Amino acid sequence: MQLAPRPGLSHLAGRPTSTVTTVAASAPASGATGIHRWAPATVAALAVRRAARGRCSRSCRRAEGEQVVTPWEVEAGDDGVDYDKLIETFGCQPITAEQIERIEKLTGKRAHRFLRRGLFFSHRDLDELLNAYEKGEKFYIYTGRGPSSESLHLGHLVPFLFTKWLQEAFDVPLVIELTDDEKFLFKKDLSIDESRRLAWENAKDIIACGFDPAKTFIFRDTDYIQQLYPVTLQIQKRVSMRTAQNTFGFTLSDNIGKVSFAAVQASPAFAIAFPDFLEPGRRCFIPQAIDQDPYFRLCRRVADDLKWPKPACIHSKFLPALQGHQTKMSASVASTALYMTDTEKILGLGGSTEERGGAWKPMARYRKLRKKINKHAFSGGGKTEEEQRANGANLDVDVAYQYLKIWLEDDEDHGGNTSGLPMVIHPHLGDTATPIFTRNHHHPSAISAAIFSQNGCHSGDFCCGKSDRKIAD
Amino acid sequence: MQLAPRPGLSHLAGRPTSTVTTVAASAPASGATGIHRWAPATVAALAVRRAARGRCSRSCRRAEGEQVVTPWEVEAGDDGVDYDKLIETFGCQPITAEQIERIEKLTGKRAHRFLRRGLFFSHRDLDELLNAYEKGEKFYIYTGRGPSSESLHLGHLVPFLFTKWLQEAFDVPLVIELTDDEKFLFKKDLSIDESRRLAWENAKDIIACGFDPAKTFIFRDTDYIQQLYPVTLQIQKRVSMRTAQNTFGFTLSDNIGKVSFAAVQASPAFAIAFPDFLEPGRRCFIPQAIDQDPYFRLCRRVADDLKWPKPACIHSKFLPALQGHQTKMSASVASTALYMTDTEKILGLGGSTEERGGAWKPMARYRKLRKKINKHAFSGGGKTEEEQRANGANLDVDVAYQYLKIWLEDDEDHGGNTSGLPMVIHPHLGDTATPIFTRNHHHPSAISAAIFSQNGCHSGDFCCGKSDRKIAD
Repeated sequence: MQLAPRPGLSHLAGRPTSTVTTVAASAPASGATGIHRWAPATVAALAVRRAARGRCSRSCRRAEGEQVVTPWEVEAGDDGVDYDKLIETFGCQPITAEQIERIEKLTGKRAHRFLRRGLFFSHRDLDELLNAYEKGEKFYIYTGRGPSSESLHLGHLVPFLFTKWLQEAFDVPLVIELTDDEKFLFKKDLSIDESRRLAWENAKDIIACGFDPAKTFIFRDTDYIQQLYPVTLQIQKRVSMRTAQNTFGFTLSDNIGKVSFAAVQASPAFAIAFPDFLEPGRRCFIPQAIDQDPYFRLCRRVADDLKWPKPACIHSKFLPALQGHQTKMSASVASTALYMTDTEKILGLGGSTEERGGAWKPMARYRKLRKKINKHAFSGGGKTEEEQRANGANLDVDVAYQYLKIWLEDDEDHGGNTSGLPMVIHPHLGDTATPIFTRNHHHPSAISAAIFSQNGCHSGDFCCGKSDRKIAD
Repeated sequence: MQLAPRPGLSHLAGRPTSTVTTVAASAPASGATGIHRWAPATVAALAVRRAARGRCSRSCRRAEGEQVVTPWEVEAGDDGVDYDKLIETFGCQPITAEQIERIEKLTGKRAHRFLRRGLFFSHRDLDELLNAYEKGEKFYIYTGRGPSSESLHLGHLVPFLFTKWLQEAFDVPLVIELTDDEKFLFKKDLSIDESRRLAWENAKDIIACGFDPAKTFIFRDTDYIQQLYPVTLQIQKRVSMRTAQNTFGFTLSDNIGKVSFAAVQASPAFAIAFPDFLEPGRRCFIPQAIDQDPYFRLCRRVADDLKWPKPACIHSKFLPALQGHQTKMSASVASTALYMTDTEKILGLGGSTEERGGAWKPMARYRKLRKKINKHAFSGGGKTEEEQRANGANLDVDVAYQYLKIWLEDDEDHGGNTSGLPMVIHPHLGDTATPIFTRNHHHPSAISAAIFSQNGCHSGDFCCGKSDRKIAD
């Protein structure tokens, strides 16, 4: 990739970047999403609803069976999130079979299972991006995370694993924003230092997904703000408080940092924010959870005025919380999600693989995971084993099954033969799920501190802040 | 001055700072003020008034004889600004003769004429600052400018010249913020590059005031944001949109950058923003125009919560516009103010002093100034020379006299013998004022590009951004 100074901001180009760390978007509840952040407030739909019938509390809206999807909160109706309605409300487009086929043709690779199985279901300007790519115009990928927890949970991994596939398939550079500033502004008792530390911890989990170090740039906002700031200012100047309020639902009680942060998250969607390794006109592609869409609607809105390319987006559904599909995994409620660190203590007891002479004891690692599943995972079957055997499973709502659908690589395992699988019946789920998690952990791009370390993917490889650090194209 | 890492932000300490430039606060109308900015919106008083009687346009308030003083607008009643009322509304304290005497005793220097003549008239926590100083605790000074014009006018110089005196008298370090970001956010057609350029141009005028390069740090926000950001975030987190709205009068049409900028301007008031050369607990002293007080009320409000020392403030009155004392000099209306550049073209024709073999031709430089005074300066006498001779001058409103009162070093020139001076009668003002401006320009700390260059005070001496750059204590 060539070093390209950005026009009009040449004074900032070529300056050594600062030291790197990580965290991009805070982790709300569930997970099959690109960027998770607690950040600002509500989507336009909510604002419209409020305007139409006055203010209504979350519980009141919930009682009306209304779904609420914002960057900070996901509350579905009894039948789960109505994604068709979301597409309509947000004004994006469903992904078609033809588009998936076209991606396979252009990349020469079978589509990722998250795409084949409809987990990534919606987009903005995907055709425009693919048209340009077909003509030889390369894009870059932008995703991120807000460091709201010590480690990532399964839901958080979905967008990163999908992003890894995109990077490999399209052979393009990737930037990962870790929004330590956002988490600090949105979480009452979080200090900047702690937010920066969490970002760093989360970066390890992210890097373990197996991104190409030569083509990946991970940064904490507090480390990279010097370069982001001119872009952030350009966006801030073009977004009124009215727009921010309508887009995110801010109130007068929100702090002034929250309101302006939207522009910080929007900035990496423009190549001009990375003058050291991206040419200014390069298109951006953003894999993200559908709840993050408000940020990028806003971002696309100002792009025309700034004469910068509008970023294309691809949206995922949410991974439900263990407790059921009305909400999503939450980084702040540990019992709702399966964390990478849920296995860590047990791992620690056994020492590193090297210390154990290369012997690998996978089963020991998943005891905590299995316990959690047994205790918390919502079942689509009956309450007792007898009832479950008699009535079978309701796979549409069975959380264990929803997870399996995502994590099993082989389509046939659950695509054709789903109706009566014993593994989806709670409390037997743990026994069945454990080997699956094990398999996933054994994969070269699996996520665990141990594997991260084994692969030698030291986070320093991904850091910005070294003047001699360049990203390959 | 010792290099002191700031607690909790140690990761940012010791990092090379970025290259410097200048501009602190946009230049509204008049001038005897510390920090001039167009920035946000209105003072608390205005918000209170609005709340009390609904929204009222500026002309409507003006018609009611009500004064309006905000960081962006100064509209006085027919008798000029009522400063006693401002002190009451803003909740600050008048400066007493005892305090001036105490400053003279502590510094061993005669008080600056701006202080002796009541141009600096109000303060916050001045006694606390002097008490600490008396016990050997040194403070630092913070002032600034927003780069809204090509050069500074007479009004802008007042705070800087006073600051120079403070720095010398108390022997303390000084930081000067140039808010290129603010001007970009507040001025519709201003680009970031142009704002940065203006900041740089303004820095030259500021440096020409004669600050001690070894104890002065001048920076543009866009260059120093990496270091400011953690402090700015801390402030942003503690200021609600409601507070910002009440303090500055923002509306939903204002952009989101304006709202959060208040925290950027507040940040340099805390020593923790300068970990490379200030210890975190050092007190700050802010010479400023009274219209900038809302920023620092807000700043003092969050200081307790952050356990950082509350900055002390000293407020100046405004230099009236040439057109009269109901408003102040405006950087955006050239005819209201006397600019340093008003003489530049004529100077250029004559070449530099060196080129002219050391000969100095002061009179040639002030033609443009005199013309401007003759044409625009509001007179306290009659409309014709006859009327003026018959009725004498009304010195309370005569603009020329107001200027003379500030710029004549000798108290006797105008202190005791003011009533019938012919020099205050318009149109004869120009002839009288010219030598005074000349005298000021001859002073070693005078302001002009030529003298700036003669003194060898290259702006680079003041720049941040060099890792080996330290500021002396």
